[in-house]
Amino acid sequence: MKSIGIFQLGLGKVGKSLVDLIIGNQHKWERLGWEVRYVALADSSGAIIPYSPYFSSEELMEIASYKLSGSKLADFGKYQFYDSLDVVESLPNYGLNVMIDCASGEHTLPVVLKALEAGWHVLLSNKQPLAVGLGEYSRLARYSDHLWYEATVGAGLPIISTLRSLLDCGDSIDYIQGVFSGTLGFISSKISSGTTFSEALREAVNLGYTEPDPRDDLSGVDVARKALILARSLGRQIEMSDIKLSPFIPDLSYEESVEEFMSRIEDYDQYFEQLSVQAAQSKQVVKYVARVPVDGDVTVGLESLPASTVFGSVSGPDNVFVFSTRNYKDNPIVVIGPGAGPVRTAMGIASDLLNLMR
Amino acid sequence: MKSIGIFQLGLGKVGKSLVDLIIGNQHKWERLGWEVRYVALADSSGAIIPYSPYFSSEELMEIASYKLSGSKLADFGKYQFYDSLDVVESLPNYGLNVMIDCASGEHTLPVVLKALEAGWHVLLSNKQPLAVGLGEYSRLARYSDHLWYEATVGAGLPIISTLRSLLDCGDSIDYIQGVFSGTLGFISSKISSGTTFSEALREAVNLGYTEPDPRDDLSGVDVARKALILARSLGRQIEMSDIKLSPFIPDLSYEESVEEFMSRIEDYDQYFEQLSVQAAQSKQVVKYVARVPVDGDVTVGLESLPASTVFGSVSGPDNVFVFSTRNYKDNPIVVIGPGAGPVRTAMGIASDLLNLMR
Repeated sequence: MKSIGIFQLGLGKVGKSLVDLIIGNQHKWERLGWEVRYVALADSSGAIIPYSPYFSSEELMEIASYKLSGSKLADFGKYQFYDSLDVVESLPNYGLNVMIDCASGEHTLPVVLKALEAGWHVLLSNKQPLAVGLGEYSRLARYSDHLWYEATVGAGLPIISTLRSLLDCGDSIDYIQGVFSGTLGFISSKISSGTTFSEALREAVNLGYTEPDPRDDLSGVDVARKALILARSLGRQIEMSDIKLSPFIPDLSYEESVEEFMSRIEDYDQYFEQLSVQAAQSKQVVKYVARVPVDGDVTVGLESLPASTVFGSVSGPDNVFVFSTRNYKDNPIVVIGPGAGPVRTAMGIASDLLNLMR
Repeated sequence: MKSIGIFQLGLGKVGKSLVDLIIGNQHKWERLGWEVRYVALADSSGAIIPYSPYFSSEELMEIASYKLSGSKLADFGKYQFYDSLDVVESLPNYGLNVMIDCASGEHTLPVVLKALEAGWHVLLSNKQPLAVGLGEYSRLARYSDHLWYEATVGAGLPIISTLRSLLDCGDSIDYIQGVFSGTLGFISSKISSGTTFSEALREAVNLGYTEPDPRDDLSGVDVARKALILARSLGRQIEMSDIKLSPFIPDLSYEESVEEFMSRIEDYDQYFEQLSVQAAQSKQVVKYVARVPVDGDVTVGLESLPASTVFGSVSGPDNVFVFSTRNYKDNPIVVIGPGAGPVRTAMGIASDLLNLMR
């Protein structure tokens, strides 16, 4: 039996889904020879450590539902509480130690580094520690064999594992490109089928596909982060600012409030209708495309692509990832599927965990 | 440093590509902490064992090119030769022992079982040991945690690993379906774009896409084997004969010679033209589709599918695999790419090897 001790950062939607997934699979994994236990949990207020070597399923569910109510672990009043995550350095060795970062933001970087330095494996769904400046990133990258981040790109889709396998098999990658945002994919599919931009965006908001401030999707920054993660995985030494990023809508501004912005989104309808009609005339579809070549500019922006390609056949919140390599040149590897959602993101983390345990 | 000792069965095109891939990556893998060495090689005549603990790169290349000339290892006259593969039982332990079966045919099953019983990991690109009767298959399946077979379905595409990850994460799969034959995919794409069947088949033969006897492709048996492997991976206890298999062409017969068959393939042109025109009228494309549901009939045969789906956008020798699951229901996971070729098949084996070593 292999014992795996988890220290999880973040107990939001993804964190909660992961706790559920791990509790739900515990018995099956034990039959496969893996004993997976939580040895610490953290949110932005600090970390809690169980009284016994690990949290029981009941304790985990109680903590997760407490967190869902919006409260901080600092106020939980149970278990040993530490306001510094440096506690990672003094945690006992529980077989294989694994830190899972499903928080959001680059504030976790210092503790992620501490964990790596202490010999832990680190699994991330949090993109931001991988999108920091090159100086800090290179400190992380030194531990690349202990760093797992399937869930940061495409959630549960096999993107990072495919990339890693191609590279480790000695294939050389020419480019990775595609539609890396389900939200923007959904909006552009709607526009291609005749819906106005404003209607499409409102529908995306109502379906819960967007961030609380939809401009965080429309800015393309999240797509650019994924492009940066892929580019760096290809060995490119680039900064976020090196990416040629055109937001989904022109002249995007955060100067007005969300409400003000949403009240005037009809202003963009004509722009998108024109784009879409022009594209349709030449049998193309408009998509928000990221291009990550092994050399040359990494770009993120709206493009018209032939409707006869896979880009024309995807719909709804699907992502598309195209890997063109020496051994997959004329016909690249294409992976399509929804690349977001808490459950699917938790599955991406779990697939890293499974690869680690096997 | 982890040491991995390989006993490879089969030194045909796939076997040669794998030897090349492993030699080509040896230095990189050593930097990652994996020392991969060949400790034995076999063909249908028997096995050879090196004088030293493992074969050098030069020795491997000499043996591989000797084999490419069509000769048997029994006549090589170098190294210790054993006419029985039972030698696997007396091989010394070289760290992690891995048998790789890239032969073709179910004759390797006994030695594969012996290796598993002796604690070896077994990696297969050879489909046939996995397509035997249920009684024998269940003996193999008992060692499922030591059995790796990415390359048997889709060659280097991430199919088995995706399936395994979904199942291990506790997702439940409704069905896997798609186009599992690049050769038949190529022919049907050609027919959809107006080429006659006979022209399309001749082009496939000239491009080297077909088996020496193209009826071995047209029979659909190879597709049915892949469907069987996927069905059994889903836990279904079925036999090859349970699969509802309709060959690509009606009334396929092996009673005439290959030459006689090829001389009258124009006979089928009208049949396919009719199918294709009918499909086009309802905006569909004709594809050779395998359907592997978790319940109900496993089917393999020609079907008309909407041209607006991914099936309409694939071309050339691309395979398509669609995974519909509880967590990927409305928008399934789709993997597209060429699913054949010696180099890509070797990459599938190597990806298993990498997952094993990590």
